[in-house]
Amino acid sequence: MSQIILPRVLPLSKRLIEQTVLQGEVVVDATAGNGNDTKFLAEHVGEEGHVFAFDIQQQALDSTAERLQALTERVTLVLDSHAHVDKYVQAPIGGAMFNLGYLPYSDDLSIITKPDTTIEAIHKLLGLLKKDGMITIAVYDGHEGGKEEREALLQYVTKLHQVDVHVAKYELLNQLNKPPFLLAIEKLRDFDEPRMIEG
Amino acid sequence: MSQIILPRVLPLSKRLIEQTVLQGEVVVDATAGNGNDTKFLAEHVGEEGHVFAFDIQQQALDSTAERLQALTERVTLVLDSHAHVDKYVQAPIGGAMFNLGYLPYSDDLSIITKPDTTIEAIHKLLGLLKKDGMITIAVYDGHEGGKEEREALLQYVTKLHQVDVHVAKYELLNQLNKPPFLLAIEKLRDFDEPRMIEG
Repeated sequence: MSQIILPRVLPLSKRLIEQTVLQGEVVVDATAGNGNDTKFLAEHVGEEGHVFAFDIQQQALDSTAERLQALTERVTLVLDSHAHVDKYVQAPIGGAMFNLGYLPYSDDLSIITKPDTTIEAIHKLLGLLKKDGMITIAVYDGHEGGKEEREALLQYVTKLHQVDVHVAKYELLNQLNKPPFLLAIEKLRDFDEPRMIEG
Repeated sequence: MSQIILPRVLPLSKRLIEQTVLQGEVVVDATAGNGNDTKFLAEHVGEEGHVFAFDIQQQALDSTAERLQALTERVTLVLDSHAHVDKYVQAPIGGAMFNLGYLPYSDDLSIITKPDTTIEAIHKLLGLLKKDGMITIAVYDGHEGGKEEREALLQYVTKLHQVDVHVAKYELLNQLNKPPFLLAIEKLRDFDEPRMIEG
């Protein structure tokens, strides 16, 4: 079996985290959702590591806890907005993952991630991140409000100073089922707060 | 020195070719330009391999020959449009590279790659390509006519059947100097001509 060189977005997101997060580090799942990334992160950082998993819906945290089983001891589930990440987590963190959009199978599909809080969370996480660390953001934009979030987000990341971070956008163009695209932000030097380009 | 995980477009293009082209294979540089990719390809395929390098400007082929030096014996320089690639090259090829736009430092910057011939070349090269092979296309779109080429190209690749190929788009968003973006097409199964999605 040959390996596909151009992966789908979710496997690529995990691959980027595997390449940059070390065992024993503290990491953040900014959107716990059904716990898929939380579990992946908990396995990756190992017994000595720790995951802070945020969600604003108790239902999401319940699903995540159920999926984690024994791995729960490596995870702190936080029922709060990821915009408040700095209240719970201290620098340095090894990496962070986002899945933007709504919680799949939720009772209330009107609960979606919002541009202002998403951007606040990314901005704070970039400060908390170690040098050479990575933030991955899978962006679903097919839902109501998705386009606004996408545009605000692209505008924000495009203004991040190129000396501080690399911001890459990756997508498969020829897929019928509207998959997410990936934003990945790599921290190139130490800073407490990323600089923004004016204008 | 830590390696940057999110590379610039031209190094990523080379990395994808290195991962998929084997020593001894025949490959195509569809836009010889100043010979940068031609030289890279000639080095990569080795003594037993061969490169067909196309350009419609004699000036480009002269620059390429000069850059190649002793590697010239591994390369056939073709003064013709890459749209006629099937007149010169037989299947299977290991990979192909494009740099779209105008020839840097050319005497005549009005000579640019054109959407119709670019797409015809890609379509033929996909047929010639081995299974698991890759075509990389660095797209500069800042010049006159660049936007039209970009749009036609994106429309074409988006219609390539997802069972036949993966089409990925990669770009660094926060760069001040308007770098190119990358299209990479990976051939997932054998075919003589790629299928297109209707509509």
